[in-house]
Amino acid sequence: MTERTWNVYLSGEIHSDWRERIADGVAAADLPVRLDAPVCVHEDSDDCGATILGGEDNAFWHDRKGASMNAIRTRTLIGEADIVVVRFGEKYKQWNAAFDAGMAAALGKALVTLHGPDHNHALKEVDAAALAVCETPEQVVQTLAYVIRGDLPGRAQRAAAE
Amino acid sequence: MTERTWNVYLSGEIHSDWRERIADGVAAADLPVRLDAPVCVHEDSDDCGATILGGEDNAFWHDRKGASMNAIRTRTLIGEADIVVVRFGEKYKQWNAAFDAGMAAALGKALVTLHGPDHNHALKEVDAAALAVCETPEQVVQTLAYVIRGDLPGRAQRAAAE
Amino acid sequence: MTERTWNVYLSGEIHSDWRERIADGVAAADLPVRLDAPVCVHEDSDDCGATILGGEDNAFWHDRKGASMNAIRTRTLIGEADIVVVRFGEKYKQWNAAFDAGMAAALGKALVTLHGPDHNHALKEVDAAALAVCETPEQVVQTLAYVIRGDLPGRAQRAAAE
Amino acid sequence: MTERTWNVYLSGEIHSDWRERIADGVAAADLPVRLDAPVCVHEDSDDCGATILGGEDNAFWHDRKGASMNAIRTRTLIGEADIVVVRFGEKYKQWNAAFDAGMAAALGKALVTLHGPDHNHALKEVDAAALAVCETPEQVVQTLAYVIRGDLPGRAQRAAAE
Amino acid sequence: MTERTWNVYLSGEIHSDWRERIADGVAAADLPVRLDAPVCVHEDSDDCGATILGGEDNAFWHDRKGASMNAIRTRTLIGEADIVVVRFGEKYKQWNAAFDAGMAAALGKALVTLHGPDHNHALKEVDAAALAVCETPEQVVQTLAYVIRGDLPGRAQRAAAE
Amino acid sequence: MTERTWNVYLSGEIHSDWRERIADGVAAADLPVRLDAPVCVHEDSDDCGATILGGEDNAFWHDRKGASMNAIRTRTLIGEADIVVVRFGEKYKQWNAAFDAGMAAALGKALVTLHGPDHNHALKEVDAAALAVCETPEQVVQTLAYVIRGDLPGRAQRAAAE
Amino acid sequence: MTERTWNVYLSGEIHSDWRERIADGVAAADLPVRLDAPVCVHEDSDDCGATILGGEDNAFWHDRKGASMNAIRTRTLIGEADIVVVRFGEKYKQWNAAFDAGMAAALGKALVTLHGPDHNHALKEVDAAALAVCETPEQVVQTLAYVIRGDLPGRAQRAAAE
Amino acid sequence: MTERTWNVYLSGEIHSDWRERIADGVAAADLPVRLDAPVCVHEDSDDCGATILGGEDNAFWHDRKGASMNAIRTRTLIGEADIVVVRFGEKYKQWNAAFDAGMAAALGKALVTLHGPDHNHALKEVDAAALAVCETPEQVVQTLAYVIRGDLPGRAQRAAAE
Repeated sequence: MTERTWNVYLSGEIHSDWRERIADGVAAADLPVRLDAPVCVHEDSDDCGATILGGEDNAFWHDRKGASMNAIRTRTLIGEADIVVVRFGEKYKQWNAAFDAGMAAALGKALVTLHGPDHNHALKEVDAAALAVCETPEQVVQTLAYVIRGDLPGRAQRAAAE
Repeated sequence: MTERTWNVYLSGEIHSDWRERIADGVAAADLPVRLDAPVCVHEDSDDCGATILGGEDNAFWHDRKGASMNAIRTRTLIGEADIVVVRFGEKYKQWNAAFDAGMAAALGKALVTLHGPDHNHALKEVDAAALAVCETPEQVVQTLAYVIRGDLPGRAQRAAAE
Repeated sequence: MTERTWNVYLSGEIHSDWRERIADGVAAADLPVRLDAPVCVHEDSDDCGATILGGEDNAFWHDRKGASMNAIRTRTLIGEADIVVVRFGEKYKQWNAAFDAGMAAALGKALVTLHGPDHNHALKEVDAAALAVCETPEQVVQTLAYVIRGDLPGRAQRAAAE
Repeated sequence: MTERTWNVYLSGEIHSDWRERIADGVAAADLPVRLDAPVCVHEDSDDCGATILGGEDNAFWHDRKGASMNAIRTRTLIGEADIVVVRFGEKYKQWNAAFDAGMAAALGKALVTLHGPDHNHALKEVDAAALAVCETPEQVVQTLAYVIRGDLPGRAQRAAAE
Repeated sequence: MTERTWNVYLSGEIHSDWRERIADGVAAADLPVRLDAPVCVHEDSDDCGATILGGEDNAFWHDRKGASMNAIRTRTLIGEADIVVVRFGEKYKQWNAAFDAGMAAALGKALVTLHGPDHNHALKEVDAAALAVCETPEQVVQTLAYVIRGDLPGRAQRAAAE
Repeated sequence: MTERTWNVYLSGEIHSDWRERIADGVAAADLPVRLDAPVCVHEDSDDCGATILGGEDNAFWHDRKGASMNAIRTRTLIGEADIVVVRFGEKYKQWNAAFDAGMAAALGKALVTLHGPDHNHALKEVDAAALAVCETPEQVVQTLAYVIRGDLPGRAQRAAAE
Repeated sequence: MTERTWNVYLSGEIHSDWRERIADGVAAADLPVRLDAPVCVHEDSDDCGATILGGEDNAFWHDRKGASMNAIRTRTLIGEADIVVVRFGEKYKQWNAAFDAGMAAALGKALVTLHGPDHNHALKEVDAAALAVCETPEQVVQTLAYVIRGDLPGRAQRAAAE
Repeated sequence: MTERTWNVYLSGEIHSDWRERIADGVAAADLPVRLDAPVCVHEDSDDCGATILGGEDNAFWHDRKGASMNAIRTRTLIGEADIVVVRFGEKYKQWNAAFDAGMAAALGKALVTLHGPDHNHALKEVDAAALAVCETPEQVVQTLAYVIRGDLPGRAQRAAAE
């Protein structure tokens, strides 16, 4: 029997290395996880629509073209994720992260949030829809290791009954 | 045949009078609209959980209790809305507004956003999921008048074929 | 026990009087039907977005604004219709009519098409998803009278067992 | 971890080589895409029902048999597509293309339209439901390359963070 | 607070008076029930399509037109029923009754069957999907009275806690 | 504009007066609430199937008939509830209460639990799916008053923006 | 790119060799099809419940146990089928076949019926929900070959554009 | 054609060896089954949330963190199960088992219960939603062998028509 692959979508902040730290942790623990994410190159994400479909004089429609094209990727991958991790960084509005979290919640996905405690109050509605609220990428990896294999830090590794 | 009532949920900013202006416009035009909203008294919204269910020493759980209780109201009303209007004001993170917008989009609701042009770039993903992007509450009222009755500003009022 | 009201959405051609003929027939037979429709004033339907939300230099985005605003109305009303009647006239592409028919079919609505026999071949995929293919508005009215009350032309009127 | 396969359904016009151009582009870029399509041999598509199930004197029912049999294929493949591309050519009514677009939209599929600018106004409702409006098959391929891998023309190829 | 109305759809046999007996029982008990049914005039049900939409030489297509038209009514009413009662009489194939039962089960409706014990074995798959298997219309009425009001035969009438 | 009626289903324990206390509180506050519940007369709930449909020698099938008949009521009312309150009393297994809670959660209903703190650990999975965990019926009433009207104990009554 | 596998469920009559003829035809044409079916050994299908779970004195409950156990298989396989073929033979009531057809239709599956023309009138409601009405197993195979590969009898074999 | 894999989720009691007995039986019969389960190490299941995400002074929130983290696993696996087996042991409240059963029923999963006859009355509502009620793990294995392969104890092994 082959092991089940878990699909985990990593939404939100693109200015720190949190996705790499999760990917490294998943690889180190050899977890059966497929990690998906939006396109994280900021200028490509902004310009993709205009670059492929043609430029726009009006910034609003330039943005619309790009945001719609990115939505092809993000909605498809969120739609088939088992778990959606949403990261809120220290800066910027990050409304698209909260928007993704709302979509994930409405679709019945397991939602995990990742942010510092200083955002706790502002994110209380989002956190209330989450099944785990993490402060570090390492906690996300530990959550995945436990959820998928039953492994807990500091205890002898054991496989969950499967 | 009685006229259809449209359910419109007004999500987001609670520090300006935009909901009142929409309510006034709807009343002035005598539109068949039921307006719903979250509880908009800030301190009640924060404290409802602890006040009713018992206080918490830990601010995180104080917030969790309140956010969960508010979710009973907001998810029910968003769930039966025809149209969800989401307002982003000048200040604060307003992640709950973007979260509501994500839920509305995933549920297939008609989404209308309301914000100033300075937020255009930061809200491009949310706007791309919206069917109308308004800058003023009066535009929201005009949108409702057109959608429901076919009335347009500056043209003779006419009923849509019903 | 009050009689059930049937919601019937009338999609498609806006250049002939077919909606009026159905409305007249429904009124004459006193059928418990609520008729809904898109905004049928052609120029208002084209210009609504730009008129309310602001003009656009680019015709493509002018159209986008209008089409999105009209979608608030059409998707809501199709979404709660019991029966969706889609009329294809003699002229124009009428792709929005076929688009509405596809939405209605995917949503599991009872689809009724209305068109002349010269369109039979071009509409064969749409007709194959329909539960009745009518050539005249009067046939639509007779279909409603039969479906709702069991009345058939040329037979004594009788109420279906309710 | 094997790469995700994206299912892309190519609906619409069958009289030009647009599907081949997309297939060639997908092969050249080695994208992990499964391309599906209706049966594109016009006379087979018309006659399949009568050929297999028995002929009909009446053209209407001849068409019905064929359209229904084709629907077994098209609805199944649209139903499992991630992305539905709908092509509108220069000629013919192409109502089945718009019908497929309506089904795709109602099912929450990522819709991409492909047509010349002369159709912009007639297709405004369909385009408003699309996440990308392309004019050439090459733009469709570029859209797929960006959506799946984050590659943009004119920039160094890079993998999206996965 | 007004009492909830229960929608009960009565599917199946049209050659005995079972619907009248249920209607009489419901009226006698003054239950808040709306009873729906297919058109039960056999020849109208057979001929409705051809009468309204035009005759057919081929009996198969004559039947198709009628069956499709009747489906507008039956699927709509089954779709909004709380309870679907399906009656199997002594004679005929009654495949449409079993078909309705299958639809009701797949839609999650509360299914009640009504038939004599001689059909028990042949109907075991249908009965296994039912929440009550009745032999008489009076048992159906008693089931409704209990389900809606908590009334049981031979016990003092009492309202369920509402 | 008439006030929205909230449907609240009261599941679980039938041996104390908690439903009456909620009903009294709702009446005292004049809340627009319809309260539904299972049939709460224990012996009727046990015997309804056998009484109406015929007795069974085997206790297992006696129970099956009754449980299935009760499910007609409970699933219908849970299915249309906005809020499902589930009460766990001091005694008995009450597996049907937990079963109802699981159904409510899977259907996306707002779940409220009601139990003493001694059950906290045993009910942790159920509570984790709930939006409010109450210890007294009065807290349920206060929750309803806040959710529906924005009223909080000890503060001046105010209507939520509607 | 590996070829898509189509799941085809074969429901209905178990007293003739129609399933074998379809399996042979599928194998001969080397179609990428997984054929599923109910357990077709009549006495096993009748007795499975009692054999595994314990005997019953009452024939009704003996049947219930068996029918419920078979439903684990049939509902799972129908639920993941792309195409449901339902065969009605010359004899017996075959209500379970019509029940399966109703489930398939409600679940949006592509329904294919298989029966002789003498059953046309009795099956008109079921046929009206089907996308193909076949008289022979060979027609079912030809339908699959066309739907999956675009092959038509008497024409040069050609692959559909994939 | 590779054999279909059946996903079977084993919910409930964690203090006896019933999961191992099912796993052994499945292995002995070489059934194509993937068995899933919650994390069955009691203390890990209780402490996972606090261990990974940080400790809590308040036992209620300690439990909440753990229950929510476990829900990531259990809801995902129940959500993709074909069959959900729920075991009720001799001791404890086991409300989470009944909660899982309610979720499985609402999601349309094939539900199988496993418990001794002394629990029959208390579990009558849960059993009434189940397609098989087993007393021993061996009966569960026999049910799987029959459902998947058509094998019955004491009869010559035969493959169901596939």
